[in-house]
Amino acid sequence: MTHPFLFHSQTQDGFCLSQGLAQVTLRTQSQGIEKVYLRHEPDNEEYLVEMQPIESVGALKQWRASFALNSDRDVTQYVFKVLTEDGQYWLDARGVQKRMPGSEYHFKYNAKHQPPAWVKEQVFYQIFPDRFCNGNPDISVKDGEYTVKNGTRPVVAKAWGEAVDTGSGYGGCEFYGGDLAGIASKLDYLQTLGVSALYLNPIFTAPSNHKYDTTDYLTVDPHLGTNQEFAELTQALHQRDMKVILDAVFNHTSCEHPWLDRGGKGDNGAYHHSDSPYRDYYFFDGDTKNYIGWKGIENLPVLNFAHQAVRDYIYQGEDAVIRHWLKAPYQIDGWRFDVIHMLGEGEGAYNNAHYVQAFRQATKAENPQAYVLGEHFFEATKWLQGEQEDGSMNYYGFAHPVRALLAQQDIAYDPITIDGCEFVEWLNEARAKVPWLNQLSQLNQLDSHDTARFITLLNQHQGYMEIALGLLFTYVGTPCLYYGTEVGLAGGQDPDNRRCFPWEQVDTSPWFGYVQRLIQLRTTHPCLQQGAILFLAIEKDHFAFTRQLGEECALVVVNLANHTQPISLPFWQTGISAGQLTPMMEQRAPLAISEEMCMEIAPESISVWMVDAK
Amino acid sequence: MTHPFLFHSQTQDGFCLSQGLAQVTLRTQSQGIEKVYLRHEPDNEEYLVEMQPIESVGALKQWRASFALNSDRDVTQYVFKVLTEDGQYWLDARGVQKRMPGSEYHFKYNAKHQPPAWVKEQVFYQIFPDRFCNGNPDISVKDGEYTVKNGTRPVVAKAWGEAVDTGSGYGGCEFYGGDLAGIASKLDYLQTLGVSALYLNPIFTAPSNHKYDTTDYLTVDPHLGTNQEFAELTQALHQRDMKVILDAVFNHTSCEHPWLDRGGKGDNGAYHHSDSPYRDYYFFDGDTKNYIGWKGIENLPVLNFAHQAVRDYIYQGEDAVIRHWLKAPYQIDGWRFDVIHMLGEGEGAYNNAHYVQAFRQATKAENPQAYVLGEHFFEATKWLQGEQEDGSMNYYGFAHPVRALLAQQDIAYDPITIDGCEFVEWLNEARAKVPWLNQLSQLNQLDSHDTARFITLLNQHQGYMEIALGLLFTYVGTPCLYYGTEVGLAGGQDPDNRRCFPWEQVDTSPWFGYVQRLIQLRTTHPCLQQGAILFLAIEKDHFAFTRQLGEECALVVVNLANHTQPISLPFWQTGISAGQLTPMMEQRAPLAISEEMCMEIAPESISVWMVDAK
Repeated sequence: MTHPFLFHSQTQDGFCLSQGLAQVTLRTQSQGIEKVYLRHEPDNEEYLVEMQPIESVGALKQWRASFALNSDRDVTQYVFKVLTEDGQYWLDARGVQKRMPGSEYHFKYNAKHQPPAWVKEQVFYQIFPDRFCNGNPDISVKDGEYTVKNGTRPVVAKAWGEAVDTGSGYGGCEFYGGDLAGIASKLDYLQTLGVSALYLNPIFTAPSNHKYDTTDYLTVDPHLGTNQEFAELTQALHQRDMKVILDAVFNHTSCEHPWLDRGGKGDNGAYHHSDSPYRDYYFFDGDTKNYIGWKGIENLPVLNFAHQAVRDYIYQGEDAVIRHWLKAPYQIDGWRFDVIHMLGEGEGAYNNAHYVQAFRQATKAENPQAYVLGEHFFEATKWLQGEQEDGSMNYYGFAHPVRALLAQQDIAYDPITIDGCEFVEWLNEARAKVPWLNQLSQLNQLDSHDTARFITLLNQHQGYMEIALGLLFTYVGTPCLYYGTEVGLAGGQDPDNRRCFPWEQVDTSPWFGYVQRLIQLRTTHPCLQQGAILFLAIEKDHFAFTRQLGEECALVVVNLANHTQPISLPFWQTGISAGQLTPMMEQRAPLAISEEMCMEIAPESISVWMVDAK
Repeated sequence: MTHPFLFHSQTQDGFCLSQGLAQVTLRTQSQGIEKVYLRHEPDNEEYLVEMQPIESVGALKQWRASFALNSDRDVTQYVFKVLTEDGQYWLDARGVQKRMPGSEYHFKYNAKHQPPAWVKEQVFYQIFPDRFCNGNPDISVKDGEYTVKNGTRPVVAKAWGEAVDTGSGYGGCEFYGGDLAGIASKLDYLQTLGVSALYLNPIFTAPSNHKYDTTDYLTVDPHLGTNQEFAELTQALHQRDMKVILDAVFNHTSCEHPWLDRGGKGDNGAYHHSDSPYRDYYFFDGDTKNYIGWKGIENLPVLNFAHQAVRDYIYQGEDAVIRHWLKAPYQIDGWRFDVIHMLGEGEGAYNNAHYVQAFRQATKAENPQAYVLGEHFFEATKWLQGEQEDGSMNYYGFAHPVRALLAQQDIAYDPITIDGCEFVEWLNEARAKVPWLNQLSQLNQLDSHDTARFITLLNQHQGYMEIALGLLFTYVGTPCLYYGTEVGLAGGQDPDNRRCFPWEQVDTSPWFGYVQRLIQLRTTHPCLQQGAILFLAIEKDHFAFTRQLGEECALVVVNLANHTQPISLPFWQTGISAGQLTPMMEQRAPLAISEEMCMEIAPESISVWMVDAK
């Protein structure tokens, strides 16, 4: 016998709580299963609970067991052991295994810390404010208005749509005039597209166009607008039932922040005054002018969280920065914490977990429903167990594998080749390490202000871009569209990935309708937002999965081959044995469901279907 | 191109420290490697250090890089990224991967906490004292001398070698008279066998024969001997340059411990007196007589470490139990902590890590060179990162996989089938999660007082037993022989696995010489104690590995098939291209080394060779 079919949904369909007990359901094939155990560790020791068969319909059998959640820790882990006629198999959060899986892959439930329920229902849209829309030319940066880079570089004002300077290394000094008024003017547009939540790159006062070099955490940059305008923007968003999260850049400030004041504008900055009250806000080497900069960059002095005043200012005080913007009149809906894994005390990330938890506590104290999102370019497992972040910018578990599969590049732009099996294995491993509810709250993206645009990585390959977008809106995790993707905006590495939004392309781009349909599909089908994922096919040149929640079921099929091929789907595994599949993104006829289906899929394409069960 | 050859030795051959910098060496094939990076995370962010080629000899190339150990944490992790003509490969502590490996598999070095160097040089021998040797019949338990199980069961005295009672469930009440004097009388025997360290099951006063139900932590059980005798035994051992570690049963006591005194012998035990000064030593439910027992067993009340007096008594006081036996005149060389993962506050294992660290600190405060060994039936990764245990009883990473491979049973005696590839994958995964020095200090065993004897699991299959023993003495980790294995002592599950040592078989058992030769091989070759492991072949029905340290290299080849087969060995990967292989366990001719070797191996056998390089 090959691996038996074993499946566990961590949604309400397969996991529910009642009086401190978790009741879990396992779905197996009906034949050849001799005994089924739920394995958990109430006190770090293995306990095997024999599961009872509760239902057997056709080829499927359901088993059930109850067990007490761990009392000694927040995260309860469990896994299934199954005895068959030819030995034993295990089901962990990746799939079926031949031996007891490592602890990191056990199913996880955090009983104490859970992400806000609204997150998974959203479609996020990331805006780099200077490049989205200029709504108020009066406040746009003027050519040479000020200097950056320690006074060495005058800022440059450019016309909307003019090519960005990709050669000089001074991409951060160019301004196109996008602002909050511009964003406010496009809310109808965004709602027509279908997005429901905005993630804004930094908007607080800072010299560069990207504003990751804050000089004032409490004031919107005057070239973007005013605090009052921002308050009006969040109110307008909330009136439309939209959400907004901001970029929290707390690892470091600008060297021009008054606390450090490298330019010497004030009279008590830490750089020029070793007796400055702000000296301990940073890591100075004794009485010298040497301090720790982020990745060694002296423009970005690292904040010293071991210093009480910094903690008070950023997160501990009643009106600390984190709390300030969560309060009226702004009431933002969450924070995206920049390079949060690097934050700590000194050059390493000493005590990092403590500070991330403290940031979370400050955020949740102000609004328990706020979204705590961490930026991590690589594996973020340890920040995603519940007590730190609700979700991360999911490069590791989504952007990287999709990029490797379709663009044959890793995040450092080195070549990488993986096939469909390796792709699915990667997705499953990354997902499995994180509690299910955090998986749903991961912020999935194809690209961002920190990576080349996906369509450029693909050399405009239409089929692959459709696959990528299709996965973005159907895979586990909350989708986030980088502005302009919906009109096919291209761009290489930073700063070319931050081109001005080409508003003239909205009516002509073939991508707009495609993205709009995907967003609609996502937002109208809860199974795509929070349904369990079941891979029905995993092969080198194709794969297929369902997202299932209650009666609702979506099917996603991807053909990576450059030829049409029939794809076999053991649809009986879903428990749905009759009805029809309706295509959601293509003009083709519905298909009748059968237990063992075979579907023809066009070359290099993705096909999305909804089940109409009978 | 298939996976390129990539190898990193974490021994002095490939990893050394100099002025806070780690210098690492990577061995690759010489052809087709375009670029090599060392990847580490000084502040949780990826840094890629390009490695420099330092030597190219024949088919091999060596690369080197230096990097600073992490300053923000004890454990530094690193991994290798290699660009080849067809993409990228990674080397982690398991082996070659096609994408960046999960954090748990990165190479690890704990700069602050390391196991004692002596551990890996030992061959341990586990003794269940009542069953090893009766040296003083005067103190042996007499039939009916006292009762156990709350006074319900009189103890039974049995003649040496008489069959144990496997049917009644009262195996713990039978006594055969083994004692400390018996052990002392067999030190010559043990040295002849070649073992260098003893692990004794509990010897402190306790009613049962296994003595996991302590009634007095400071007194050797009078049926085993006296404190004075134990002091003399440890002195005799130390004079022979032998080591001894004791069983530390601190999770729970006997219900007859005077603190609880269920039998009511004293006048202030916690069971009968709700105002007892010892009431908070346990977890009583209010003023009732209900308390928490280990796994619900009321004979084994769980100690409450949240209570200061318990902490003081067990580990914090100047003469606390942990410290007491490490001091003169006993000076034991370490502790094997029973069910250490379950220890904590209350029914779960709340605050477990804190207590394990505290036990370690107390142990090391008395003797920094003492061995801190934890008992874990399952995965012990999180206790083995350095700051908790030096090593664990390595069921998960050695006994389980060997048992699955050769005896087709898991630890619960359920059937399991794995082939040679799955076996090696299991070994590699388990090992890779732990820092290298802790890997070397794992206590590997085939069986113990808690499992059926391995030879019985194998139905006396000689070839498989030779393979198992061969792996025990050549694989990574410190071997521990369960008493009697060297004379083929059989036995099913507890208590049948605790039969009396059959002294009459020493001169006749064919196993004695085999085990003795393996022990000699292990103790005379540092490469078997601490050499890097490199798998030269991994197939379903055979596998082969080398252990390499400096100039020394051992080769181990296992043929699982039931027929003689030629096994291909790409010996060039070792960097040794000439010389000969001398067989260590068989009568056969030496073999000349060549870059691509082929070796004939008998069915179901293990073959061990030492390299004589030219």
